[in-house]
Amino acid sequence: MVAGCGERPVPLVLIGHGGSQHKGSAGPRELAGLLVRDHGFAAAAIDGPVHGERRSDGGLDPAAVFADARADWEHPGSLVTMAADWHAALDLLLGMSDWTAGPVGYWGLSMGTLYGLPFLAREDRVQAAVLGLWGSAGTAPDTWAGLASAASAVRCPLLFLAQLEDQLFAPAGVLELFTALASRDKRMRLNVGTHGEVPAEEHAGTVTFLVDRLRQALASA
Amino acid sequence: MVAGCGERPVPLVLIGHGGSQHKGSAGPRELAGLLVRDHGFAAAAIDGPVHGERRSDGGLDPAAVFADARADWEHPGSLVTMAADWHAALDLLLGMSDWTAGPVGYWGLSMGTLYGLPFLAREDRVQAAVLGLWGSAGTAPDTWAGLASAASAVRCPLLFLAQLEDQLFAPAGVLELFTALASRDKRMRLNVGTHGEVPAEEHAGTVTFLVDRLRQALASA
Repeated sequence: MVAGCGERPVPLVLIGHGGSQHKGSAGPRELAGLLVRDHGFAAAAIDGPVHGERRSDGGLDPAAVFADARADWEHPGSLVTMAADWHAALDLLLGMSDWTAGPVGYWGLSMGTLYGLPFLAREDRVQAAVLGLWGSAGTAPDTWAGLASAASAVRCPLLFLAQLEDQLFAPAGVLELFTALASRDKRMRLNVGTHGEVPAEEHAGTVTFLVDRLRQALASA
Repeated sequence: MVAGCGERPVPLVLIGHGGSQHKGSAGPRELAGLLVRDHGFAAAAIDGPVHGERRSDGGLDPAAVFADARADWEHPGSLVTMAADWHAALDLLLGMSDWTAGPVGYWGLSMGTLYGLPFLAREDRVQAAVLGLWGSAGTAPDTWAGLASAASAVRCPLLFLAQLEDQLFAPAGVLELFTALASRDKRMRLNVGTHGEVPAEEHAGTVTFLVDRLRQALASA
């Protein structure tokens, strides 16, 4: 899924979807639509491991996908392969001859943070990121070791979301991940509700954050 | 320090200053000025225990005041007496015949939170609050017991600030206090920096929060 064209440089946002979703799920699709229609940005999403078109069943049964995903998260190898896929996707997008890419951002909550951090740790072309809804408690020890190591190498400006009643990742462990991020230009927003109950105004704030930061980068380029 | 007049109801913000400051320090004074001049609100501040005009030396030496304040925070009795003073101050302000008070807010970081929570716990006239920069770690056990008990009775909408490198209150303990607050309409903003390094944009956001909430309360009154 790619959108955005023209001769002027167009900011690009990479969207890492959540566990059990896929690149064309309602969430990524609505976010991409907002960025393209309301802000004139480009947006792109790829399927996570064991998600979407990577599966023989097409990944349309969220419960089946989520079970496979949880098993996959036990092994840090999936972080390495997914980061390689994101680097390759970005190479491809920036190399396309029919548009001029501007500054690049990354947006990924929950599994989008699990797979976004190892990518961002080795990717200096990304200039702003939205992350969150993941933490140490709730993550298998080997995977947490890989994730914490990646976090310590992430230096881009970022906005990080957390939910006080997150049933998958307790706030104390989410704070541990936020603390581990090497970025000095970072802020955490903790709201009331479960994993899936990020307030609409906070979700809107993530778009504002990326749009503002990428526009600033474009203006100073 | 009181400002604001007129026949229409005027929202009122009570300002609880930080440790070693006093009711007329630059911080409370600038916040009050902003609320009065830019938003047409009223604002009022009173001295904390062992601060300002409550002292024979006038409280103009921050180091001497801070030493006395830290000793005072060891004893939960100061929470009870300061809450009584805030209730009395609010009674007085709302009973003045030369203005019509609108919805009431409370703004108090650090010591302003220590002394604000026991007040808010028994005060249903306050409709929105800005709190933060205080937590369990760094608070004497008896005082923490009183503060946690107060927090569990606070139900007004609130915005809570925290600093990742707070040298007085570690983030995990600040998270514990935020979690203890009974309000369901609450959000925490965690930023990079020490106790005194709240970002200017975040500080501005506290004013926006109070102004928006009290204006909404005024409109729906």
